[in-house]
Amino acid sequence: MTVSPPPDHAFRQRSAELNDLLCVLNLLNWDARTQMPPGGSVTRAQQLATLTGLARERLLDPAYETAARAALTAPHPTDRAARQSLDAVHAMRRVPDDLTRDLAHLRAEALDVWVRARAGNDFASFAPSLTRMVDLHRRLADALGPGDHPYDALLGLYEPGLTTAALTPVLNRLRAHHLPLLQAIQARPAPRTDFLTRHYPAALQRAFARAAAERFGYDFGRGRLDESAHPFEISFTRQDVRITTRVQEHYLPGALFGTLHEVGHALYEQGVHPDLTRTALATDLLGQYAVGGASYGTHESQSRLWENRVGRSAAYWDLQFPALQQTFPDQLADVDAETFLRAVNRVQPTLIRVEADELTYDLHVMLRVDLERQLIEGTLQVRDLPDAWNARMQADLGLTVPDDTRGVLQDIHWSAGMIGSFATYTVGNIMASQFHDAAQRALPDLDSDLQRGEYGPLRDWLTQQIYRHGRTYTPQELLQRVTGGPLDPDPYLAYLSGKFSNLYGLPAPTPENPPRPAPQETP
Amino acid sequence: MTVSPPPDHAFRQRSAELNDLLCVLNLLNWDARTQMPPGGSVTRAQQLATLTGLARERLLDPAYETAARAALTAPHPTDRAARQSLDAVHAMRRVPDDLTRDLAHLRAEALDVWVRARAGNDFASFAPSLTRMVDLHRRLADALGPGDHPYDALLGLYEPGLTTAALTPVLNRLRAHHLPLLQAIQARPAPRTDFLTRHYPAALQRAFARAAAERFGYDFGRGRLDESAHPFEISFTRQDVRITTRVQEHYLPGALFGTLHEVGHALYEQGVHPDLTRTALATDLLGQYAVGGASYGTHESQSRLWENRVGRSAAYWDLQFPALQQTFPDQLADVDAETFLRAVNRVQPTLIRVEADELTYDLHVMLRVDLERQLIEGTLQVRDLPDAWNARMQADLGLTVPDDTRGVLQDIHWSAGMIGSFATYTVGNIMASQFHDAAQRALPDLDSDLQRGEYGPLRDWLTQQIYRHGRTYTPQELLQRVTGGPLDPDPYLAYLSGKFSNLYGLPAPTPENPPRPAPQETP
Repeated sequence: MTVSPPPDHAFRQRSAELNDLLCVLNLLNWDARTQMPPGGSVTRAQQLATLTGLARERLLDPAYETAARAALTAPHPTDRAARQSLDAVHAMRRVPDDLTRDLAHLRAEALDVWVRARAGNDFASFAPSLTRMVDLHRRLADALGPGDHPYDALLGLYEPGLTTAALTPVLNRLRAHHLPLLQAIQARPAPRTDFLTRHYPAALQRAFARAAAERFGYDFGRGRLDESAHPFEISFTRQDVRITTRVQEHYLPGALFGTLHEVGHALYEQGVHPDLTRTALATDLLGQYAVGGASYGTHESQSRLWENRVGRSAAYWDLQFPALQQTFPDQLADVDAETFLRAVNRVQPTLIRVEADELTYDLHVMLRVDLERQLIEGTLQVRDLPDAWNARMQADLGLTVPDDTRGVLQDIHWSAGMIGSFATYTVGNIMASQFHDAAQRALPDLDSDLQRGEYGPLRDWLTQQIYRHGRTYTPQELLQRVTGGPLDPDPYLAYLSGKFSNLYGLPAPTPENPPRPAPQETP
Repeated sequence: MTVSPPPDHAFRQRSAELNDLLCVLNLLNWDARTQMPPGGSVTRAQQLATLTGLARERLLDPAYETAARAALTAPHPTDRAARQSLDAVHAMRRVPDDLTRDLAHLRAEALDVWVRARAGNDFASFAPSLTRMVDLHRRLADALGPGDHPYDALLGLYEPGLTTAALTPVLNRLRAHHLPLLQAIQARPAPRTDFLTRHYPAALQRAFARAAAERFGYDFGRGRLDESAHPFEISFTRQDVRITTRVQEHYLPGALFGTLHEVGHALYEQGVHPDLTRTALATDLLGQYAVGGASYGTHESQSRLWENRVGRSAAYWDLQFPALQQTFPDQLADVDAETFLRAVNRVQPTLIRVEADELTYDLHVMLRVDLERQLIEGTLQVRDLPDAWNARMQADLGLTVPDDTRGVLQDIHWSAGMIGSFATYTVGNIMASQFHDAAQRALPDLDSDLQRGEYGPLRDWLTQQIYRHGRTYTPQELLQRVTGGPLDPDPYLAYLSGKFSNLYGLPAPTPENPPRPAPQETP
């Protein structure tokens, strides 16, 4: 008697193969960013292109669709995996081959052009590439299905289900909250930060960051910490989840908070349930990326939660500052925990997004979201982009942009073809507070656990609620399951107001004394 | 007007893709051996299996054969690439799918069993895996085409064109030479080696090894030096050729000569002509390995040439010893260049192949070649293998094997499914001297160049003669082109006799006073 295989057998096998290919792509990228000698860049790009092409070919193989259809009746969560796979197949089929090819070529080319343009403060030389990038993304949005707004399809690549209509009022609320709070903070005396730029030997910073990562529960048996110019987290299944940081000997917070941020991402990936390993629920099939997290925003919520809500809290530094001071006794001789806490939470407008504090970071994001949305709508032309950028920096952050290198050319995203991704940073901030508050409701001892440096209960709760599910649920479903509601900026705004009012000695906003609304520039 | 693509267009494209896949497999293996956290091993094995399967599928795709046939008329060397590709396709087709699958599974399983058996000195637990490995290799040899001797097909996997009939007399000559020379050396006083096991800080060893690699011309812009338990060289195109070494703080020669050895391999790969990048002439299609060297033996000839003929020479240490002494002034205070040279060329039988000196190394190889050939012939049974091993160690090296861990279980090769590969180590030794002597004939200033530490002329000559051709020529063709003859042990034997007679103060063998022939155990 022949036992016939279960109906989802072929689907699981093909999904595993696809996940393998995308994990290998992740490794090629990790290696290129941390280990590869400079000579390898051209042939590495060819290897990446070959593997990306193969993965696309396997996804679009009619046998994959047949296998996914057969698996639609499989038990949960394989039915979901099959459904998501079919959605990805159909979406990818809607994108013409020549558009895919053109986008891949333009990405490689534009990155190069951008690197030189940024170095030479020469926006004009980048403008043609960006114009073409915008055009191709408009075609991509059209192909994927225009929805209510052409920007929606691009948002959806990074945050499935997010729409311009849902995002706009949320960002408006943030803007109305952040601008007056920033104004109030700037009227107060600035905290001391001089000691953050003293000399902190790299080896000691590395050791401290490593210990901090371990305390949060990052499993070095399934991971490693390297250095790279731009810190990142990447995984090759939950069994091998790597993070990087950047150590600067004259700036203490960089490596430390950078590590905590990446650890947040890594805890998510390490916490995906083993049953999801090598399945479609640990694979972003459309984005061609092996990842266990539900979306960019969901992922970012965990990096922000661990970096900011835990790592920049008074509870954290009350406990950890003595160890830091012991590591750097001379550098921190004239500093106490309270002074250190205020320094690493200092709010100060900066030209550069990646150097921004917790409050002004969202303003950087909103600027980019508005401008790229207008580019996609066609209401802003690439040639007018620098002026629009500079005007907005002046209006929101009170900063005059001295050159495009520190302005419109600062980010890699547009040259890398990631139009639509910026919003997820702020969505992640918002979700972080929603999830954190849900954890607080579920874990009555959470605050005292964190005060004692017990991070296990929080991590375990997040694992149960979020991490273990991988990509089983959409971000909206996950929010609903975990917090009981949709994306909601209130917990985040309450957290920021409370935190900074406290740190800067501001009167807490009350119903009688609401924060002054800002001018509504975001439509 | 449509311009039709050249007849080798599809072949070059498909070959590039295959090379990409195999380069990626190399990276997966490099990473597993140098960087990967322990948790990643299972999913990494799955990724390797998926990519290996894909590469096999692409090679056996009928379109690849069609493309290769169309390219047979392309200009040299693409015609050769096409011919070799067709040979690989036909050979791989002769191997039944189930045998390929069984071998892959057995390799993974046997490796694991072997690791435990070696740790526990338990040959009996490994014997069933080895028996099956021998059986599958007999089937493999049959499938590939038995030739005159079933062992030939296996030899040919590593050294195309090498046959048992050609190898046996060569090894017999070596054996007849080495055994009496060893006896004569053992009758002489042993040189001092006490200082080699003093404490040599790892960081200083690393720096010295790195500088030595640079002096030989290893290009760190297209490479990197890492550490691993078992040193190796691996490439992901000529643009990215990596080496590893093993640093032991209480054994100086390990990291140093290990590095020079891997540098020899790396110079070969870095010297392949850029036009061969991503072609079939930088790809071992049948072995499924991205490699530019013509064969295992040819490759080994270059590691041995740079490690031994250059790196263990009097000219090398006369020049470099002062720098070594400056690096380790306390450890080498009571040592001079001559004493150091004698120490690193000490001949002393050892149980362990990888610890063997230049002379006894070949005896270790011959033992393994004879035993594995007998296993494949069926004239030796796996259960009788430990006794056969131990008897031969006693006869050839005068050593009593105290346990199988230090005997028949010491090497990874049989559990890794590399039956047929051992001979290439000695073939490499022989070729190294043939190539070296050819260089000496072609470069009248070679000796004085080396005395002055000018390694460029030798490296450039080897690049022109050997490296740049990649896999264009078979090892036999390459030997013929470069040395004017076939594999010939004479230069190697003359080198060893001369060197060790000199170091140990032996009378040089003359026609009147020939070395005493040893008992002929090798049939």
